Formats: sequence, C-alpha cells, structure tokens
Amino acid sequence: MTPILHNYFRSSTSFRVRVALALKGVEYEYRAYHLRKGEQKGTEYRAINPQGLVPALTWTDGSVYTQSLAIIEFLDEAIPEPPLLPRHPAHRARVRSLAQMIAMDIHPINNLRVLDVLRTRFGADDDAVAEWFRLWVGETFGTLEHRLAQEPETGAFCHGNDVTIADLCLVAQVANNARFDVDMTAYPTIRRIYETCMALPAFQGAAPRHQPDAE
Amino acid sequence: MTPILHNYFRSSTSFRVRVALALKGVEYEYRAYHLRKGEQKGTEYRAINPQGLVPALTWTDGSVYTQSLAIIEFLDEAIPEPPLLPRHPAHRARVRSLAQMIAMDIHPINNLRVLDVLRTRFGADDDAVAEWFRLWVGETFGTLEHRLAQEPETGAFCHGNDVTIADLCLVAQVANNARFDVDMTAYPTIRRIYETCMALPAFQGAAPRHQPDAE
Repeated sequence: MTPILHNYFRSSTSFRVRVALALKGVEYEYRAYHLRKGEQKGTEYRAINPQGLVPALTWTDGSVYTQSLAIIEFLDEAIPEPPLLPRHPAHRARVRSLAQMIAMDIHPINNLRVLDVLRTRFGADDDAVAEWFRLWVGETFGTLEHRLAQEPETGAFCHGNDVTIADLCLVAQVANNARFDVDMTAYPTIRRIYETCMALPAFQGAAPRHQPDAE
Repeated sequence: MTPILHNYFRSSTSFRVRVALALKGVEYEYRAYHLRKGEQKGTEYRAINPQGLVPALTWTDGSVYTQSLAIIEFLDEAIPEPPLLPRHPAHRARVRSLAQMIAMDIHPINNLRVLDVLRTRFGADDDAVAEWFRLWVGETFGTLEHRLAQEPETGAFCHGNDVTIADLCLVAQVANNARFDVDMTAYPTIRRIYETCMALPAFQGAAPRHQPDAE
C-alpha cells in the first residue's frame, strides 16, 4: 500500500517528517487533521495513534509509526540512501544532540496544547503566550547559534555538507518562529543554514504553505 | 581518561544516562552540579556544556556529549553489548517512540526551568505547579499504559525481555512522579515494568538516593 502521512500543514513535527519522506523519495498520501478543530483527538484518528498527536505514518505494510524523530530514524534505517545521519558514532551523537536541543528543549514547551493550558489555567493572553514562546526559543537558540558557529563540524548544513536530522529540526523551528515574531538577528548561522535548506526542493515542497490543507 | 558524568542526583535525564553507563559496564567519575543553586549555569560548566543543562558526558578521548538520549544512543553504538535497542528497524522505532513519548511529551514541559517560569511569570504556587506536572504526566501516561498493555511486543520490559532505552525513560519518569504525588493506580503495566527494572542492580545503583550528592 501507499504510505499515509497523518499530519497538519503548520505542525513543525509534521514538517520534519515531510522533508524526510521527500529526501528518501517516498510517495505518500497526505491526510490532514485540523489541530485547532481538534480533529487529531477524534475516535477515528485515535484508532491510528492513541496519543492523538500528529504526525503518524502508516507504512507500506500497514504498521503505524509515531513520534517524529522515531519516524525519521525508522525511514533512515529502512531506506539508507541518502543518509540523514553521518556514519561515525561521535558524529551521529553531535547531530542527534543538535536535533534534540530543538526537539526536546524548545518544541514540546511551545506546543499548541501547552500554550492552550497557559491560556485556560493561567489566563495568558496573546502577548504572554508569544513571550513564553520567544523565551524558550531564545534559551536554546543562543547556544545553538554558538555551537553551529564555533564547532568545526558545521558546514553548509548543521553537520558538514549533507542534510541531517538536525537540519530538519532547525528548519521547522525557524519556520514556526515566524508565527511569533522571533527576532532572528542574533542567529546568523542558523539563518544561513535555514536559507541553504529552503533552496532545496525537498524542503520547499514540505513547507507548510505548500500543503493541501494550508490556509 | 576515565569518563566524567556531569549530572545531578535528582535529574531524571541524568538517571537515564547513569543506568545506560551501568548496563554498559562503564566506570566513570561522578561530578555533581546542584541545579537549585544554579551550578549548571556557572562559567566552569558552561565551558563543558554551553547549554548549561545536565547531563553531559566527557568521554575517554575528552569529547563532550550532551542531550541524554543522544548520549545513550552514542553509548549503544560505541559499546554494542548489551544492546539498548532491538535490531529490526520496526522494533527500534517502537522503542524510540515509547522513549520519546516520555522524553518529548512529558519531561521537557515539567522540567525545573519551566516550573520556575510558571512561578515567576504566572504566579503559580506549589499546588498549581504540582497540578501542571500531573496534567502532563496524565496526558501521556494514559496512552503509554494503553500501548504497553495492548501491544504484543511488550514483555517483562517495555519491549520484550531485554532492557531498552524506553525502560530507562520510563523508570526515571516514574521516580520523578513520586515527588509530585502522581497517583499511579491507573498504570499497572507501567508500575510492573518499573518494579522489574528497579530489581536490577544497574537501576538500583543509578537511583537518585544512591548518588553521592543525594540529600
């Protein structure tokens, strides 16, 4: 069967997986769940992913994969070319640590469901929510910029001259930042890598505004 | 040189890495940073890990590894036995997705630095902070219990009868839950796996209360 990507155009974790699928040359059916309308919490989708979060990937054999980084590493193991991780364990660890700085230390805290709780339980208004978003981006992007600018392994991309999982996370986060007016002035290396990635068809085609459910 | 683990007894991400080091039979120097006193933000530690977060691992060659899951996968690649991930890509993806449900969808939102911001910016008191903590545990543990109870791959541990990365995350989270009085009644499978793990010397020795900086 054709793989099915269960996702949402604006979800940055979905964006990561769309890039990976494009780089691996996987054709897939795009199935959209409108997060603002809570479609990911419906019984139909819960039967696919009981966690009620996007993305999920229904693979060719009908198996369902969840959690964006787990999905991407699965794709990388199932379809080795082009690799999304370098070969040497030390280099793989560097790429994973860069990816996880974004995937662990920024994204979960700034996720829609967390922002909703800030509004409903703590009375946060739009300004307070945006400030919260920018706080956690800044906490990590300062160090991320420092690492990418200083570490000799950085190349055209986060690690050398091939796209890795770290680039997928970086690009999706930068795209997300634009929605909350994050000032990117202090992050020239991050911006450079973002621009380099976005010049590639795999990233362009996976961008939120090019998805069928884009508003 | 002897590896150095930069960590804190009560940090659950540190706990994960301590278990991995024990399972892999790695002797290491234990270096403690008191998070409540902000020692991880000092210039000395920032020179090791500019992100100012624990854990970090200084390896035998002097290289520094950061981000707990990246460190654990590095250890698993550098020291293959005993493996902390199964061999088949589909199984590896299941283990990683279980691990990431905890490492992405619970831990970052309930991290000390986030709870501190809830207090200082939103006036959250101890009760409100504890409620926030339990909310995010409950959001994910309900599904985690469902998956572990229903999926046939679950065995004595999260995946079959060998310890994997998912177990490291599960145990550290359950230990953390106790500090916020999380009611574990609804999670019998999680509790069973926790107890099975904690009967093993590698988990026992890595537990917060057995560390040199334990209070």
